Formats: sequence, structure tokens, C-alpha cells
Amino acid sequence: MLKLYGFSVSNYYNMVKLALLEKSVPFEEVPFFAGQTPQALAVSPRGKVPVLGVGQGFINETSVILEYIEQTQSGPSLLPADPFQRAQVLALCREIELYIELPARACYGEAFFGMTVPEAIKDKAKAELLLGIASLGRHGRFAPYVAGESFTLADLYFMYSVDLACAVGGKLFGLDLLAELPKAKTLLDTLQKMPSAQRVAADKDAAMPAFMAMIAAKK
Amino acid sequence: MLKLYGFSVSNYYNMVKLALLEKSVPFEEVPFFAGQTPQALAVSPRGKVPVLGVGQGFINETSVILEYIEQTQSGPSLLPADPFQRAQVLALCREIELYIELPARACYGEAFFGMTVPEAIKDKAKAELLLGIASLGRHGRFAPYVAGESFTLADLYFMYSVDLACAVGGKLFGLDLLAELPKAKTLLDTLQKMPSAQRVAADKDAAMPAFMAMIAAKK
Repeated sequence: MLKLYGFSVSNYYNMVKLALLEKSVPFEEVPFFAGQTPQALAVSPRGKVPVLGVGQGFINETSVILEYIEQTQSGPSLLPADPFQRAQVLALCREIELYIELPARACYGEAFFGMTVPEAIKDKAKAELLLGIASLGRHGRFAPYVAGESFTLADLYFMYSVDLACAVGGKLFGLDLLAELPKAKTLLDTLQKMPSAQRVAADKDAAMPAFMAMIAAKK
Repeated sequence: MLKLYGFSVSNYYNMVKLALLEKSVPFEEVPFFAGQTPQALAVSPRGKVPVLGVGQGFINETSVILEYIEQTQSGPSLLPADPFQRAQVLALCREIELYIELPARACYGEAFFGMTVPEAIKDKAKAELLLGIASLGRHGRFAPYVAGESFTLADLYFMYSVDLACAVGGKLFGLDLLAELPKAKTLLDTLQKMPSAQRVAADKDAAMPAFMAMIAAKK
């Protein structure tokens, strides 16, 4: 059986978990908090979450895990068969990761964990976030899903990266990042009501107190 | 015929160009400097280089373009057929992009273009670069190629991201990033001697004076 290493508070972990749930692929969740210990680095070369454990070994990087699952597992396909349409979905995934998730992530410490992020980093993140959201507005179709009529990998990135980016935008910059993308707001609501997403959210809520205590202990 | 939009100084552009040359896929180079003009954003949603023009439209994001080329074009395969081995190659690509290219890129302005990058951003980039290189040392095989015995997409990322990251490490931080990875140094030398890589390098050298003049005019 596939093993999913990580923890339920991680948004990247939850992308993979939702994909497995939507495809009805059986999997075992293995608690793994990553980090730079030799034990963690033997599982994940950069000490990151999630990791997929398969018969041949470990697979890291969310985007790679998601494609591996598409390639090897049954269930509803989350990527179009046509190479061009497939490329559009994957490009939307990368755009959300590189241009929305990563600048937002640079600010997570201040937005969510009571730390202070240097102004230079926040200024850069804000400028990049605005360009990233504008890019999503141009490339995303929201008809009703991010890439068109079907639920795809791009929706996984959208629901678990853009919601946190919106929280960063509101808390740190007083911005409503989706103000000019009403269809995106509607989609976010729709996705969060999926039964599988509600299970992921419940697991996250249940894991949050222990996670916050762990963060506090590290300070 | 495939159209490759971009310019010869871009390292991401050169990854795709080398893939096409290695696979002997015919392509036309279309000068495109990206940016935030409506014309550029109609080609690339985030205003980035490169973009691949195909019959159905535009494909953006280097990682997506490279996979699309693998999926649709003939020539030597740059990804293993086995899904697990394929995932290892793709994970190496992502690790190089996310953990080496991106922190180095945050410093390109100061390292290459006479600008000043805030200390907070340089400090963060330095810490991330060191972790990224250590990750590459753990996951890369260098036997002799990054992912093993064959030239793959991971080598494209390696040759065009790690060389610039090493320049950033040397110029800004006085670090020899590959000091503890002699096999990686050897591979970089080997890759740069490939006839296709020499053509890419010659095109880059030829384009550099006009590019630097354009940068200077924008200051």
C-alpha cells in the first residue's frame, strides 16, 4: 500500500492526500515532520513534506508525487489525456506554486506563527503575490474549475495554496487578493465543500493544537 | 514547427533549447523578452521566458515545456520509462529549481547586473542555497550524470542553474558551493563540452552585449 509521509497541517501534504482520496487509492498516513536530522534526510533529501513511500523507495516533491500517482494508480484522472491540455493544467500548477505559494510562504512565519519577517522580504513577497494572482486571473479559466470543466491537479494547488496566500494578503498587507476574481472565490467555496476536502480539513483541525505547541516549543 | 520564444541569455530558455538540440527536434527561435506588457502577457501569463509555441497555442513554464517535448517529440528520451525512476529524475529537477535556482535568482541583480539586493534577502538566499546544494549532494548520483548513467532532464537543470548559483555563491558569499561535490564539478565540465551546449553557449555569448545594454537602459 502507498505510504504518505507528512502531517495534516501541511498544505502540500493535503494536496496529495486529497488526490488519493478523490481517486479512492488506499494509502497509509505515516507521521513525519521532516527537518534536517539524518533520519529525516534519509526520507526526504531536502527535509521537506510530503514524501510518498512506494515499493521501490521514496518519492519527494509534491508535483512529482502527484504525477506519479496519475501515472500508476487507478481512479478518476486528474490530468487531461491530450498533451497540450495536460500542459495547461501543469503550467497552472507551477504558476500557483512558484508565483503564489512561494511568496506567500516567505511570510507564513509572521502571518501564522507570531514571528517577524524582514520588511525587504515582505515587500518582495507582496509585489510577487500581486503578479502571481494577476497571472492566475489570466490563465485560470474557472469554468467552473481552475483549468476548465474538470477537477484537475490545478484545483489541488489552488485550494491549498491560494487560501493561505489570501490569509497572508489579508493579515500582512490588508489586501483581498481575489477581489477581482469572483469566480475564483466561488470555486474556493465549492472545493472546500467536497466531502474529501472536509475530511482533510477535519484532520488538519484535529492536528493543529499539537502542531502549534511544537512550533511554540521550538521558539 | 515548434517555436521557442525567449532569448539566448536566459538559462531557462537554454534548458529547453538544449533539450530540443539533443533530441534533434526542429524548432524556430522567436525573440521574446517577456515582461508585463499586454503583448507579452498574451504569450506568457506571468510574463516569463521561455514559452513554446505549438499548433494549439502557447505552453509556458520550463518544467512543463520539457515534459511536453518528452511526451510528443521523437529523439533520445530524457526521462526514464519506469515511473519510479522517472519520478527520481523529476524530483531532482524540482530540487534544483526550487532550492538552488530560486535562492540564487533572488541575488542575480547584485551578482550580475550591478544592483543592490537587501541583506535580509541575501541572508535567506545564502542559507537556502547551502541547504539546496546539500540536498543535491544527497539525492544526485553523479554516475556520471545527475540521476545516474543517462543524460536526463535533471542534467539540463543542473548545468544551467547550478553554474549560475556557483557564480552567485562565489561573488556574493565567497563560497565554493561544489567544494564537497567533486563529481558534480566534473559533470559540469563534461556537460559544458557537449557540442549542443557549446552552440547554446556561443549563442548566449553573442547575445550578451545587447542584453546588458538593455538592462543598463532600464536602470
